[in-house]
This record gives sequence, C-alpha cells and structure tokens, in this order.
Amino acid sequence: MEKLQAVLSQIKPLDRKVMAETQKRLDSLTKPPGSLGVLEELTCQVAGITGQVRPPLPKKTCILMAGDHGVVAEGVSAFPQEVTTQMVLNFLRGGAAMNVLSRHVGSELIIVDVGVAADLPDLPGLLKRKVAYGTANMAAGPAMTRGEAVAALEVGIEVVQDCIARGTGLVGLGEMGIGNTTPSTAIIATYSGKPVAQVIGRGTGIDDERLKQKIRTVEKALAVNQPDPANPLDVLSKVGGLEVAALAGVVLGAAAGGIPVITDGFISTAAALIATELCPTVKEYLICSHLSAEPGHGTMLEYIGLKPLLHLDMRLGEGTGAALAMGLVEASLKILTEMATFAEAAIAGALPRSRK
Amino acid sequence: MEKLQAVLSQIKPLDRKVMAETQKRLDSLTKPPGSLGVLEELTCQVAGITGQVRPPLPKKTCILMAGDHGVVAEGVSAFPQEVTTQMVLNFLRGGAAMNVLSRHVGSELIIVDVGVAADLPDLPGLLKRKVAYGTANMAAGPAMTRGEAVAALEVGIEVVQDCIARGTGLVGLGEMGIGNTTPSTAIIATYSGKPVAQVIGRGTGIDDERLKQKIRTVEKALAVNQPDPANPLDVLSKVGGLEVAALAGVVLGAAAGGIPVITDGFISTAAALIATELCPTVKEYLICSHLSAEPGHGTMLEYIGLKPLLHLDMRLGEGTGAALAMGLVEASLKILTEMATFAEAAIAGALPRSRK
Repeated sequence: MEKLQAVLSQIKPLDRKVMAETQKRLDSLTKPPGSLGVLEELTCQVAGITGQVRPPLPKKTCILMAGDHGVVAEGVSAFPQEVTTQMVLNFLRGGAAMNVLSRHVGSELIIVDVGVAADLPDLPGLLKRKVAYGTANMAAGPAMTRGEAVAALEVGIEVVQDCIARGTGLVGLGEMGIGNTTPSTAIIATYSGKPVAQVIGRGTGIDDERLKQKIRTVEKALAVNQPDPANPLDVLSKVGGLEVAALAGVVLGAAAGGIPVITDGFISTAAALIATELCPTVKEYLICSHLSAEPGHGTMLEYIGLKPLLHLDMRLGEGTGAALAMGLVEASLKILTEMATFAEAAIAGALPRSRK
Repeated sequence: MEKLQAVLSQIKPLDRKVMAETQKRLDSLTKPPGSLGVLEELTCQVAGITGQVRPPLPKKTCILMAGDHGVVAEGVSAFPQEVTTQMVLNFLRGGAAMNVLSRHVGSELIIVDVGVAADLPDLPGLLKRKVAYGTANMAAGPAMTRGEAVAALEVGIEVVQDCIARGTGLVGLGEMGIGNTTPSTAIIATYSGKPVAQVIGRGTGIDDERLKQKIRTVEKALAVNQPDPANPLDVLSKVGGLEVAALAGVVLGAAAGGIPVITDGFISTAAALIATELCPTVKEYLICSHLSAEPGHGTMLEYIGLKPLLHLDMRLGEGTGAALAMGLVEASLKILTEMATFAEAAIAGALPRSRK
C-alpha cells in the first residue's frame, strides 16, 4: 500500500508550457497548421508528459500481464483455463500475434505471471511475480482480498519502474487471462451504471447460450459483492482480476515516472479506468490505441474520455492494438524532429493558426 | 487512350479460392477466429489480389503526383500557386511530412510533375512527365481537354507499371497541388448529387469568406461544365485535375498489374472514385488508409464503399495517411507468416469459426 500511495502522490499534470512550445514548433513546419490532426496532438502530449519540447524517440516496451479467473467455473469462456498457461508459453516462444506485432514496431515484450493458476517453468523472458493462483470465483464472493489487489497493483508499479530504469520511454499494455472479459464487464457496468447486457460481449467468441450465462454471472457477481464505485480498490478487488490490477499499477507507475502509456482493448482499458479513478490526472498520460469490437469498450473509452487512434474491429487483446499504435506515436515524434520549417524550405504564405 | 483501354481490360476480380485458403490459415493460428478483425480482412485482400495464399512482404512505393489548378485564380486557396513548386522542391530535399512518414514505414517515394505550372529543375528523384502547365480555370470552362485528361491518366499507368516492373508490390497514393480540394469537391458533388456546401471543406485552412467564394466557384464550375456522371472521363476532364487524373491512372495500373493500392485523403480518393467509375472491379484492389478531416471525404468513401483504417483527423494529403497505413498492411501479412498455429503451439480448444 505504501508503494501505491507514493506513486499516487508523484503523478503531476502535464507541462503546458512545453506543450505550447512544441505546438509552436509544429506550426512552423511545412504543412498547414494543425493539418496532421491527432498526430500533432500525440506529439504535444508526449512533449507535455516528458517535459521535453522535442522528445527523443523513446525505447518502447509492451508489458503483458497474465492471470487466471476463478469465474471461469461458471462457464463464461469458450476456451478452457489451461489456455492461459499455454498462451504464456506461446508468448515465450514468440508465436503469438503479440510477438509478431511487437517485433513489427520494434518493441520489447515483457511477459509477467502475476496470477496464472499453474506453476510455470523458469524460462527466459518470463517475470515470475505471482500474487495468487488465479482469482476466486467473483460470482460467489470477492475475486481477491484487498491485500491481493494491492499486491498485484504494486507488481505492476515495480515492473514498469524497472523498465523506466532500463530506459523505457513508452509503455504498451497487454494481457492474457482466459475469462478476463467477464471481470472487465463487471467493472464497466459498475462505473457506467448501464445494464450488464448493454456492456457485455462474446469475448473470444462464445455462443448465445454461453452469453446468457455470462450476463447472469456478471449480474450475480455485482449483486453478491456490491462493489462501491467511489472506492476503486473495492471494485478492483471484488470484481477485477490480478492482471487487471497489475496493469492499473503499470499505468500509475508510468504516469508517476513521466512516460506515456498506451491502452489496448477491453481488459487493459478496464485497468486504465481503475487507475484514473485512483488518480484522475493519469488520464493525461494515456494514449488510446484502438476501439475493440468488444461492445463495452466504447462505453469504457467514453467514460474515461479517450479517443481511439485505430478502428480495426480487433478483439484479441494481448496488447496487439497497443503495439500497432506505437508506430503512430513514433511517427508523430519524427514529424517534429525531421520535417523542414517554412523558413528552411523557403515556402511562401506560412499561415497563422486560425482555422476553425 | 489505347493504353487506358488495355489496362481496363486487364483488371480481374480477386481470386476467391486463394482468399478462402488464406482465411483457413488465419483460423489455424493461435487466436480466436476473426479476432484480428480488419487486419485479417487486409491479409485476405492482399492474398486475393496477388493470387498467393501467403503473400511475401511487398516492396512499398508511394507515388506523389503534383499539378496546378487554374481555378486558384478564383481565390479558393489560402496558399499562393507557387507553393506547389516550392513543396515539390521540399519533397525532393526530404523535408516534408510525406518524406518523414515514407521513411518511417520504409517506403520508396516517387515525385512526379504531371502538371506543375512552372519549369522544374532536373533533380534526382523527380520524374518529369508534365502534360500541361496546370489546368485551365474550371469556373470558366473545362479544366482539361479530353486528350489532356487521358494523357495524364496514362502517365499514372506508366509510372505504376514501371514501379511494378522494378518490384513494387504495394502502392500508396499521394499528391500536391495548391487548389486541388476544389476540383475534388466538384467530383464528389457530381457523383453524390449532394449540394456543394455539404461536401466542401476548408482545404489547407481558408476563412469563412474564402469558403463562401470556394462554394460559389464549385457551383459555377458545375453549372458551366455540366459534367456527366455517366461518363467519368467527362467529369475528370471538365472538373478534375492533372494529378487527380494521373492518380486514377495509378489506381487502374496497379489493379491491372495485380497489386493493392492505398488511398490517402480527399484528392487521392477523388482519383480512386474516377477509377472505380471507369472500372468497378478496381474497388477490390483499394485499401482505404484514413478518414480525412475534410468534410466531403466521408461522403466519397461511402459512395465508393470503403472503410478507413485510421481516424486521425488529418487533412494534409501528400500521401501521409497512405504511408501510415502501409505499416498496418505489412503487419497483417506478418501475422499470416510469423504466428504459430494451434497445433504447433499445442493449445487446447481451437474453435470453429462460428462467432456471430
């Protein structure tokens, strides 16, 4: 809890003066002012986060938190629980979609066992930070104790602090955990106040019958646990997950460490939501990679106030959207440093920034 | 006209059998079927275009067509006409946004003078294929003769055929031409039948007064020329542009040569629209990079039936959106060739493709 409190106290608003300087530089480049739209917003955001008018290209790291969910006993997922372990091994061998996309954008990928329900072998690339062998079944009681939730949060904080110490300047969120759209649905239902059926989806691809069961399960979990939206740790521990908690920790640790953090899909955004509830300033550090095909994701993004860069109907998670967005962030920074100014290019009619 | 006719006769529908094989391969990979959404659609589209179940990573080329517009005499642009030339020189020196983004995604960038209203110096990287010193003022009569429009189309065909001969497997469209949102507006107004005021925008950033003048100018051009939507060459020559025609040629030549082509913003999509009117099958070869902030762009995409990958509120043109999308196309192909299958990864519960 001490580590969490310390980090929460370190998160500062972005440096608006630096952002204004960066925008001024952007407006001097050979393009109509503002014409690169969201790319320019990204540039200014990274400048404001890092406090540098011309931020260097950051070292990129995706952090993939893996955890299991007791709630799978209710029959909410199309895949059996052992797939979490099998996929962790797949990540470590480099064969998953997330490996391909991390390599594509030149990002490091760190796999963390924060709550897999099995003992994993010692393998290069695996960080063993297990807090518990999966959560308890939230349909029958709290998914985690408050202590477990805080421990998992602090794992995320420590992992990202280590990354920052090793030079990471841009973090992407990723996760693996069979059943984890179920707690994420419970989290957004709690905060949005919308009926479960409106924010639920088919996760990895369940059929109609299982979807009905998933709705009943989330409704039961909310009724049994009565999570209190005014207390994010209450929500997180009762209807969250170990990897969700750890990712919330990554978000907080990144913001405290002054680096931007890229959300992925439904689960990582649930983690980001908890982080913003713990500290609203965190929102300024978030870059939203994509809008997932999971129906509740749009509600989540709206609730936090995030705008997705990519609309690719993806619903895989793992950090795949976050990895793709890293290429866009990098592009936005190259614009700032590699483009010629109107003066350098001797171009007529540089415009004041007055477009409606 | 012969070259154009030859190319039109060579454009074939995609190979559905190959696409089905590629989808089968995608469904065997370690992810829920269909969970990579549009990335999977891209993979299948490229497979169907190239006729290869596992298409190799293509050599990427962005083709930037530059041309001037007589209609700038009506006061429709915020920048003076000489900026077209100045920007061409900026491209050749590597200082424009398009240079930065082409380098970012590892794409070749070819600059073609198809209609700049000035004599350009001989410079490395510049293809001199000038058809005319800009178009005539379309508010007073046809922008081009039918012969000029066809000549510019054929420049586009030849340029992309040369690229394909040198190994290019993926083409992005780019353009430069002060005033060129004005003819593009006239083209979409003609095809959509919507009032000019509904499909017009501020281009590089004009003020309210100039916007009114731009609306009046497009309305006048349509009234004077009466372009016939049933005859795409009539529309193109009367209210198009030399670079628009050349890009339509690039689209047709790419489709005839069996390679995918990525649209950029408002102007390049106007060119793609003309190409699809000349040959509707061309649509299957188009990848839509982004939705521009230029208001008429959405109407254009809807008219053709294209869905943008990126929503970045960009309105720069040059090919900047097309370049960014190249990274996504490449990612989609890596997914196909670099991911492990369920069998290879020994993962339980591979699912049939049955998700609603």
